[in-house]
Amino acid sequence: MKALGPIPVGYAAKDGELAIGGRTASALVKEAGDTPLFVYSRDLIRQHMADLRAAMPDRLNIHYAMKANPYGPLLEFIADLVDGLDIASAGELQQAREAGYTPREISFAGPGKRDRELFAAIRAGVTLNVESENEADRALQIGRDLKVAPRLAIRVNPSFELRGSGMKMGGGAKPFGVDTALVPALARKIVDAGANWRGFHIYSGSQALDADAIIESQGHVLDVAAELAGEAGVTVPHLNMGGGFGIPYFDKDTPLDIAAVGAALEQRLGDLPQILSETQFAIELGRYLVGEAGVYLTRIVDRKVSHDTTYLITDGGLHHQLAASGNFGTVVRRNYPVAIANRFDAEAQEVVNVVGCLCTPLDRLADAASLPRAEVGDLVAVFCAGAYGASASPATFLGQGPAQEMLV
Amino acid sequence: MKALGPIPVGYAAKDGELAIGGRTASALVKEAGDTPLFVYSRDLIRQHMADLRAAMPDRLNIHYAMKANPYGPLLEFIADLVDGLDIASAGELQQAREAGYTPREISFAGPGKRDRELFAAIRAGVTLNVESENEADRALQIGRDLKVAPRLAIRVNPSFELRGSGMKMGGGAKPFGVDTALVPALARKIVDAGANWRGFHIYSGSQALDADAIIESQGHVLDVAAELAGEAGVTVPHLNMGGGFGIPYFDKDTPLDIAAVGAALEQRLGDLPQILSETQFAIELGRYLVGEAGVYLTRIVDRKVSHDTTYLITDGGLHHQLAASGNFGTVVRRNYPVAIANRFDAEAQEVVNVVGCLCTPLDRLADAASLPRAEVGDLVAVFCAGAYGASASPATFLGQGPAQEMLV
Repeated sequence: MKALGPIPVGYAAKDGELAIGGRTASALVKEAGDTPLFVYSRDLIRQHMADLRAAMPDRLNIHYAMKANPYGPLLEFIADLVDGLDIASAGELQQAREAGYTPREISFAGPGKRDRELFAAIRAGVTLNVESENEADRALQIGRDLKVAPRLAIRVNPSFELRGSGMKMGGGAKPFGVDTALVPALARKIVDAGANWRGFHIYSGSQALDADAIIESQGHVLDVAAELAGEAGVTVPHLNMGGGFGIPYFDKDTPLDIAAVGAALEQRLGDLPQILSETQFAIELGRYLVGEAGVYLTRIVDRKVSHDTTYLITDGGLHHQLAASGNFGTVVRRNYPVAIANRFDAEAQEVVNVVGCLCTPLDRLADAASLPRAEVGDLVAVFCAGAYGASASPATFLGQGPAQEMLV
Repeated sequence: MKALGPIPVGYAAKDGELAIGGRTASALVKEAGDTPLFVYSRDLIRQHMADLRAAMPDRLNIHYAMKANPYGPLLEFIADLVDGLDIASAGELQQAREAGYTPREISFAGPGKRDRELFAAIRAGVTLNVESENEADRALQIGRDLKVAPRLAIRVNPSFELRGSGMKMGGGAKPFGVDTALVPALARKIVDAGANWRGFHIYSGSQALDADAIIESQGHVLDVAAELAGEAGVTVPHLNMGGGFGIPYFDKDTPLDIAAVGAALEQRLGDLPQILSETQFAIELGRYLVGEAGVYLTRIVDRKVSHDTTYLITDGGLHHQLAASGNFGTVVRRNYPVAIANRFDAEAQEVVNVVGCLCTPLDRLADAASLPRAEVGDLVAVFCAGAYGASASPATFLGQGPAQEMLV
């Protein structure tokens, strides 16, 4: 038997079924018309934001990193909750504008911005976090061509990394950002060129559950920002401190202590060097805001026993849940939290493998999971499906197509 | 420095550039209008088929497993070269019919076929490779409802596996197929129910480069098919022997010796047990037919040095090339064959990392690769991109969208 990840707080049984937003899984599927289906909960997103606001300093802005989940209705909903939006492509810019965001709220990071993406962003008035001197030069030229002062910040490649991070985005050689040694000269160049200088973006990693690691990283971010600004002789109108707040996916993962992170940051922001005294600080969170608020529902199409192993074969799979299948950024596959959605309050009775419908052994949703007895027609819920699910999976693989999505 | 995989046979320089189908990479990009771009070569697909036909017994049919590449024009082109088509979903059935395939040429395997997929396949007259007793029962019922005799074969979960296989599809407990012990009774049941009995589908693995392993596996397939048919007292009108023919992706990979495979199979087919004497044999190949015939072209957007490491940042990435990035079925990432397409005959001059444009450290196309000096605007070619590329990657991730595709 292999343990399942912890089911996030906020999910309970109603009439014996998993309920999301007060409605049963089977009712949601009925409304959607079919499985597989992603369901995202407004209540849970609101709750996560409220918890964050309570824990974080008032002075700190909270941005949404839309790469985590760009579903239109969710994007619109979250707009009223956050202070800004972080995008990673011109495609995301278009989705953001369709969802009603104003360009002033938006910043754009990404190591391979094409000229046409810089053009679209500068014309719209979006802040660009430039990732290299070459990119800064191109942005300045496009600004001159458009006769506007582009809003430019520098994405810094910090020399430290976020300890315990799922993905390291800083420390040593990286394709992201500008090495600290090169930042002061570039900052001066941008200011001297007459751009609308916005400050720094310093991102050191993601998916960390250790509060001490995040506190340490945020401390470094403040130190580096002050140091670089001092060296360059520039102000820091805005400092994007990155994100990195993780959520528990796997057995023995424990939730991040955001109260501890917030208290430490409060203290640091209360004791700022002069050069950062007027700075607007922000963190950008994607997964932390929406990851636990999403559930992937898929129906059992077959139940079979092969050499004494029971398989529940669903109509979903890695084409919607690449990360849960263990094929995205993980070396050793572990089980996400998974349940039989329409038998949510039943006791575990058997050990089964839950797989997707794709004709590949990579398509696994839960290995050797202890679950209530389930039959063909029952619904399987994969939790922590709100971030890096639908948009980060190969939906067209084997002719399947995208899952349905709902915000409730 | 990390070695690159071997560039497939059939690619040469023209005017100093990589040429595909006789045209330079830059001309192809110009015609397509933009990068990233997948280019698939008719000549190379034709050549691979000709080599296979020459090596394999005349009696053997060759099917195309469209999961490898469902691009419409390629699917249409390959129809005239192969003897049948293998699909894995009703979505693929629709694509196949749009490409002009007749249902009699098509067989459908996949562990999680929904009722509506069975219905579509049976109504069209496609052969179903049933994966469980439950699925057989559902298919028989749908046949009764439709008043047609469904064309049914049994997909067997063999007790052996393909040695050295990239992905094992047989041996022990599996979600695929019916355990051999259960096959005879199910075969009888299908025949007795008045279905159009088609025989067996026995697939033991994929992406093998060792001819001896494939020869051994094909021998087992013939033995198992004869044994199961004898036990069940049924004929075997058709035997799908699976595929498993691999292509070299990585340094030190050597091509599969198809002459050896073909000679061994010729011998076995010349000495068949009585019960298989009337059988039509087929292998199903996807990757082997189209993998080496495809190239992914992406443009360098930035060139930067971080802590003495040079990065070439392209406008492509894992959203089109998930497997090449090392995030699909591989534990340790290794480099695919990669080249600077518009400097194809230049000598290697430097060691660089080639990455995609996505804001994630997972987005790697070549690590520490020795390549000619390349500049912003140059084209990077990733080879072996004809199979499990565009359709097996998360195209919508970070708002990017699909790459363009061309058949030349």
